[in-house]
Amino acid sequence: MKIAVNVHLKAGVLDPQGKAVLHALHTLGFKEVEDVRVGKQILLNINAKDKEEAIKKAEEMAKELLANPVIENYEIEVKE
Amino acid sequence: MKIAVNVHLKAGVLDPQGKAVLHALHTLGFKEVEDVRVGKQILLNINAKDKEEAIKKAEEMAKELLANPVIENYEIEVKE
Repeated sequence: MKIAVNVHLKAGVLDPQGKAVLHALHTLGFKEVEDVRVGKQILLNINAKDKEEAIKKAEEMAKELLANPVIENYEIEVKE
Repeated sequence: MKIAVNVHLKAGVLDPQGKAVLHALHTLGFKEVEDVRVGKQILLNINAKDKEEAIKKAEEMAKELLANPVIENYEIEVKE
């Protein structure tokens, strides 16, 4: 089962990479972009009997390794 | 409008970061994980009149700046 874990810096945390991309997009003429946040998307292929089990496992992995809870939020997404 | 651009290395391209995460997950006991790919998720806040326009703009940005078409694939996702 394919599960995506999307990890992003929390709202209050400065995201210099996002700022750099925003600036570059403006320079290229994309003036309609108002904000950019750059995060990670980790695609996991999990051997699980159903969706619920895969989500539960991905949740544990996010907490233990994939995200830093001090500065990052994560979100679990089922891909297929 | 919030649009996510998910950028991942193409299937044939080696992903050492993904391999490292897979190894770390196995070490932590998550034996049910079979494969890991680590990519980027870029969240864009686009000022557009409708979803179609926002997607079209995000597509242009992905082609011009956000993804490297030689080694990366991208996918556009409407977040809200």
